[in-house]
Amino acid sequence: MSHPPHHVDIRDVSMRDGLQIEEPIPLSAKLELLAAIAATGVREMEATAFVSPSKVPALADAAQLAAELHNFPGVEFSALVASPNGAKRAIAAGLRSIEFVVSAADGHSRANVGRPSAEAAAQIPEITAIAHDSGVTVEVIIATAWDCPFDGPTDPQRVLDIAAAAVDASADRVAIADTIGTATPRRVSDLIARVRPLIGGIPLGAHFHNTRGAGLASAWAAVVAGVSRLDASVGGLGGCPFAPGASGNIAMEDLVYLLRDSDVHVDVDLDAALAAARVAQEAVGHGLPSSLLRAGDRILG
Amino acid sequence: MSHPPHHVDIRDVSMRDGLQIEEPIPLSAKLELLAAIAATGVREMEATAFVSPSKVPALADAAQLAAELHNFPGVEFSALVASPNGAKRAIAAGLRSIEFVVSAADGHSRANVGRPSAEAAAQIPEITAIAHDSGVTVEVIIATAWDCPFDGPTDPQRVLDIAAAAVDASADRVAIADTIGTATPRRVSDLIARVRPLIGGIPLGAHFHNTRGAGLASAWAAVVAGVSRLDASVGGLGGCPFAPGASGNIAMEDLVYLLRDSDVHVDVDLDAALAAARVAQEAVGHGLPSSLLRAGDRILG
Repeated sequence: MSHPPHHVDIRDVSMRDGLQIEEPIPLSAKLELLAAIAATGVREMEATAFVSPSKVPALADAAQLAAELHNFPGVEFSALVASPNGAKRAIAAGLRSIEFVVSAADGHSRANVGRPSAEAAAQIPEITAIAHDSGVTVEVIIATAWDCPFDGPTDPQRVLDIAAAAVDASADRVAIADTIGTATPRRVSDLIARVRPLIGGIPLGAHFHNTRGAGLASAWAAVVAGVSRLDASVGGLGGCPFAPGASGNIAMEDLVYLLRDSDVHVDVDLDAALAAARVAQEAVGHGLPSSLLRAGDRILG
Repeated sequence: MSHPPHHVDIRDVSMRDGLQIEEPIPLSAKLELLAAIAATGVREMEATAFVSPSKVPALADAAQLAAELHNFPGVEFSALVASPNGAKRAIAAGLRSIEFVVSAADGHSRANVGRPSAEAAAQIPEITAIAHDSGVTVEVIIATAWDCPFDGPTDPQRVLDIAAAAVDASADRVAIADTIGTATPRRVSDLIARVRPLIGGIPLGAHFHNTRGAGLASAWAAVVAGVSRLDASVGGLGGCPFAPGASGNIAMEDLVYLLRDSDVHVDVDLDAALAAARVAQEAVGHGLPSSLLRAGDRILG
């Protein structure tokens, strides 16, 4: 085992990746959940996405939600965008941090944004310029970094090319995402070993789903391999509502438990994360796959 | 990341640890499940336990089950025992391999076998002698190796003392067990770093539950740290039937998926493990927490 870092930055993605496939919930319920998550001490939250309301009806209230974010001054909020127009909308709504997602695989990129990966990646300079002109930071998220639901395994070179484009465009952060929850520790370590040196001093994040049970194992492998940022959602929100118990994003409380017991500091309080996960269950009206929510903490020494 | 081994021996524990807290099922259903598991190619199976039938009614048919094991010549079967008398019963029933479980924590040891850890450990030489006199192999399993549900964290020295006693008594194998599913990768690596050199050339195994979501992460950490044997159950059988979705042992198919994608060879076929998990669900009459059972394999390259 290599040496894990002393601190990892956790971003809560419950409000965007967690809710996007759920039935739309009222803004008031969203704000209650957001407040519960903010109370965990988490420093960064992905608040919403500025994408097509018809494709993602659960996030159609992005601008209304953005108007409320000033009530949570301790949190840095970001929003996901998939086009220059989305970036402009996010900035106009007051966001100071955007994430531009580019699928490394053509199949997923076409399904998601209607164009192949290279065409999507070609927008990185424009999006970065739009953001930086307004003093807004940009994270480039490389989706389907390990596997695509249509194309199968992703050639790592595709990921490296997008990471290099992000560096060239002076993106502020890069993240690699296991969009469909297929990654495993060794594949994670191998890819990070190639991406990490390529992007120099730019912070590198990773995003995992627990779809095949290996989400936490992959997250730990990522931390050991040099990632300093991880995404998670309270309760493991983000699973498919039509497959009860199916796992979504890695659960915040399970991740915090693992990192705490590995002497890695995080800003998130475990008990508060469990409380927020219960609020999330109420908000979406069904059980969530989090393990800690069911089992509770261990007896500490 | 250190260098994982090229092969890991997997023992299926569905028939014992997986079934012991379930409502008793008929011998015929057990044999159907056993046949499905044997068809995965797994080389070792924990078939049952020779313990008090009143305390573990689900395994009261241990001798009858043992009488059927000759029908599965490709598998090495073992049985768990908790006393010299249990060891004699297992050997009389035809088992050629026994596991003697010793809790490292006094609280769990008293609850489980009515005596403190040191008294239980003092039986290792007698049990080993009984077994070896009959040409039977003995594995010493150190339970509550990280945490006890009554005493909290386990002093690692307690684990080391039992491991040393196992070596002194010429036990054939040693395993460390995360009995209540609280272990995390770094605690796993730390303990194995101390146990592994102590037991010399004796094979070291590890046993994890996924209760707090970190089972696979811990298993991978164990493999990287020098464990050559892992336990698993099909479907993740072994969860509490009164807590739907609560995770039991790490799921065989999730483990095989993770190891396959990490270039670690195992004897278990993934599709056959998924089929066996479906048989297990039928046998116990409720859903099991396995992730692969829900999500399926990824598209391979």
